[in-house]
Amino acid sequence: MHQNDIIQTMLQRKSIRRYNDKMPSDEDIETVVRAGQQAPFASQLGSLLLSRRREKHPFKAPLLFTICGDAHKWELIMACRNWEMYADDLMILLLGMQDAAYMAENMVIAAESLGMGSCFLGGAPFYASRIIREYQLPPRVFPMVQLTMGYPDEDPPPRPRYPLEFVLFEDRYPEFSQETICQAMEQMDEGYLAQDYYRYHKAMITLVGEREESFDFDTYSWTEHISRKWGQPYFPDNLIEQFEKCGFYPGKRKGE
Amino acid sequence: MHQNDIIQTMLQRKSIRRYNDKMPSDEDIETVVRAGQQAPFASQLGSLLLSRRREKHPFKAPLLFTICGDAHKWELIMACRNWEMYADDLMILLLGMQDAAYMAENMVIAAESLGMGSCFLGGAPFYASRIIREYQLPPRVFPMVQLTMGYPDEDPPPRPRYPLEFVLFEDRYPEFSQETICQAMEQMDEGYLAQDYYRYHKAMITLVGEREESFDFDTYSWTEHISRKWGQPYFPDNLIEQFEKCGFYPGKRKGE
Repeated sequence: MHQNDIIQTMLQRKSIRRYNDKMPSDEDIETVVRAGQQAPFASQLGSLLLSRRREKHPFKAPLLFTICGDAHKWELIMACRNWEMYADDLMILLLGMQDAAYMAENMVIAAESLGMGSCFLGGAPFYASRIIREYQLPPRVFPMVQLTMGYPDEDPPPRPRYPLEFVLFEDRYPEFSQETICQAMEQMDEGYLAQDYYRYHKAMITLVGEREESFDFDTYSWTEHISRKWGQPYFPDNLIEQFEKCGFYPGKRKGE
Repeated sequence: MHQNDIIQTMLQRKSIRRYNDKMPSDEDIETVVRAGQQAPFASQLGSLLLSRRREKHPFKAPLLFTICGDAHKWELIMACRNWEMYADDLMILLLGMQDAAYMAENMVIAAESLGMGSCFLGGAPFYASRIIREYQLPPRVFPMVQLTMGYPDEDPPPRPRYPLEFVLFEDRYPEFSQETICQAMEQMDEGYLAQDYYRYHKAMITLVGEREESFDFDTYSWTEHISRKWGQPYFPDNLIEQFEKCGFYPGKRKGE
């Protein structure tokens, strides 16, 4: 594998949940955001809400960015050009979320390069209505994800990832053998257990319903954790309503 | 603004649509993909389809990645753990697309750092059914975007972006003055006109319906171009059907 500063920065990146006292400067913020803006994709539908009210943030992080897909400001521009939005909301979300996400990932790596750390918070869409109130969002702005940022006060190792063979498929999507699946699971589970990740973060998702707990922190690891996120009511069951509160109706066909 | 190699690489990035003869090595590919994998977010729902069949690719690019949100392989893992997917499809798409997008943007920047260039192709979702056939995708894999990659045979300038003030909002979302909107439009339109972008790419979107053409390449620029993309039937009107062909029903509430 090739090595250079950029590759190294990406491979070394890990989510940071403890931050020291230093408040990132205006120049830090400007650099990160400008690097974010220069990310590719078509329509610049991303907008960033910034808060420096540290005491209110998850992990008391110095900075909290809320990264939004924003059709509002774009529709203002269209109006100046005597156009109205024709595309349906699913399309706006599909393409707008990409604008926002590519920008966000540039920000993550740019922050790393300045010695800062960050952590994505995927829950933002589920409490979009709170974010609407807090930041006085107009309709047609959708909070996709939040990103804490600041100078790190911890130095965890990079986290495990799937084997390359479970991610990259040439020419055709494979039929996975049971062995391939098991290897991918093992690499993730043994990797996280070796880092004692879930014990350190006291992060074991409680089972809902009839299932009986059979794990402890010697055995509980990534595939079980993520299965519990996706396999039971872990996320609030309100996503369509939250999209609608933001003025988006992604399930409706045009004209419905 | 701070400067370093990483920031510089991000600020200098531009989409590359002409590639030289050099085929990226296996090591190039591995490096880019590993850097992609290490991107943050929760569930590793991204999968990459790779083609090196250059003659079939847009711009005859040496590499074509199809970046997918993949619930299929994750559901196989859940099954091994005796779990079934509970979350609804809108949630899977919202979170899975982010897994895939953060990975993709790392790949873009990693490629840059190795002297390669790339270009996103946002149209993939609209011809998902063709990609399903081509790569023999199982249900529950959604092609989100494609990315051409290779060694560049052109060196265009970085493209204009909005003023920072039109992207970053502290504490509250602003009410935009007409002046702010006009400035953002001007910066984009004059920036692209100065680069003669649309003339060079012979990229003027034809007007549909009653509207009469009043632009030529001396006046046609970014806001008009993007308005035509979003304001008339430019993208195929089939997105929900394409999602359904991939086995996703993002408009359905749980139990519907």
